[in-house]
Amino acid sequence: MRNMCLLLSYDGTDFHGWQFQPNLRTAEGTLKDALARILGERPKLYAAARTDQGVHAKTQVVNFATERGIPVEGLIRGLNSLLPADIRVLRGGEVPSEFHARYSAKSKTYRYFILTSPLNSPFLRRYTLHVPQGLHVEGMQRAIQAIVGVHDFSAFTKKSTSYRNPVRRVLSAKVKGRGEIIVMEIRAEGFLRYMVRNIVGTLLLVGKGKIDEEGFKAILESRDRDMAGPTAPPHGLFLWDIEYEPSLLFPPYRLGV
Amino acid sequence: MRNMCLLLSYDGTDFHGWQFQPNLRTAEGTLKDALARILGERPKLYAAARTDQGVHAKTQVVNFATERGIPVEGLIRGLNSLLPADIRVLRGGEVPSEFHARYSAKSKTYRYFILTSPLNSPFLRRYTLHVPQGLHVEGMQRAIQAIVGVHDFSAFTKKSTSYRNPVRRVLSAKVKGRGEIIVMEIRAEGFLRYMVRNIVGTLLLVGKGKIDEEGFKAILESRDRDMAGPTAPPHGLFLWDIEYEPSLLFPPYRLGV
Repeated sequence: MRNMCLLLSYDGTDFHGWQFQPNLRTAEGTLKDALARILGERPKLYAAARTDQGVHAKTQVVNFATERGIPVEGLIRGLNSLLPADIRVLRGGEVPSEFHARYSAKSKTYRYFILTSPLNSPFLRRYTLHVPQGLHVEGMQRAIQAIVGVHDFSAFTKKSTSYRNPVRRVLSAKVKGRGEIIVMEIRAEGFLRYMVRNIVGTLLLVGKGKIDEEGFKAILESRDRDMAGPTAPPHGLFLWDIEYEPSLLFPPYRLGV
Repeated sequence: MRNMCLLLSYDGTDFHGWQFQPNLRTAEGTLKDALARILGERPKLYAAARTDQGVHAKTQVVNFATERGIPVEGLIRGLNSLLPADIRVLRGGEVPSEFHARYSAKSKTYRYFILTSPLNSPFLRRYTLHVPQGLHVEGMQRAIQAIVGVHDFSAFTKKSTSYRNPVRRVLSAKVKGRGEIIVMEIRAEGFLRYMVRNIVGTLLLVGKGKIDEEGFKAILESRDRDMAGPTAPPHGLFLWDIEYEPSLLFPPYRLGV
């Protein structure tokens, strides 16, 4: 069996998320249909992350096992000719048998984009959350530092989800203002469901001056979802990059940007 | 009567162009419907340019006459709450009675965006033409200079359209490469139908090495549409900016970027 890896990019707007669901247009289902037409079999796909409905992927990584000896270049070209324009296979290759898109990932990076212009932009509306007011970026920059390190993120997970282990290690967290665009970036070894969107929703309370840096920290430490802000909508969120041990990467490619 | 002016932005993807057509979703029709709900009348609209189906407008300017004494801020807010997300009213104001969005314009600027990465981007596909090959940007830069000045643009108009006067003055023309994006910008006192898209389609022949700078100039001088390249598709094209005499602008706004 060959272990094949694909690097994808998709616009989440018109997908019901990554994960296959019968009778719904999902990114996984769309990719599987295309793979089935080329390989003559429907391989089980392992993805680095299951993006929720409406969330985009600048980078998504999947792997699957196949007996088919199809050359990688032909596979990528064939997939892109079959796939709709909102999902593209950027790269691919054979990887060591122990490679697993999710379990081999050392870290994942998400970015969330906010547009603060008075009016929403017809051109950015699918990829940014529109917040038509000035946000206090420095306050958000200070507050977000509280999540760096190992923490119980129960306050920021999906309500009514219970994790056996809600502890995750966040490697870096940044807020950058670039004109009318604010970008939040969180890199972590793992994420809970809705974790980024709940952190963003709570950081927005800081940006609007409704809570301060200490208040943000207190919410994290409370481990109580009811203390945190609302879940930010999905369309500003991008699964941005995924990091692996270099020895697991398929030469001559590097995954990510 | 008050002469009112509005500055708009729209994503042309889902509009059948600017101009009203019964039973089709057009930008003009959409704006008129919203105006009618606020004003209680359907004013005749004068637009700076009639963008074709699929063409975007970073800046479109319209004016209309009304007896209604509605404050401008309320009008803009009301319109944006009624309009769909792919069209926004950015600014507005009362202008002198002699102002006409089209006839008062000193010049209009169009930009055309090309993405030259090997694969199309799920995120830029609505706003750029994908040309998956390297283009010779310097050759295109030299060739485009031929259109600057006063010329008969019959070679670059819509086939089977006859203009009483196919002569137009082009004020500036540029091609810029920014990484994988190539931007062409043409500023002119007036444009013929399909003029920008036909110039772009012919410049692409230069970029691909099929004709040279001299060949491009010969096509312009031939005044024969059959000599020129194919019409470039609409989705890379933006009506970008419109210039008026400062005395006609509504203070404290400046139109455009």
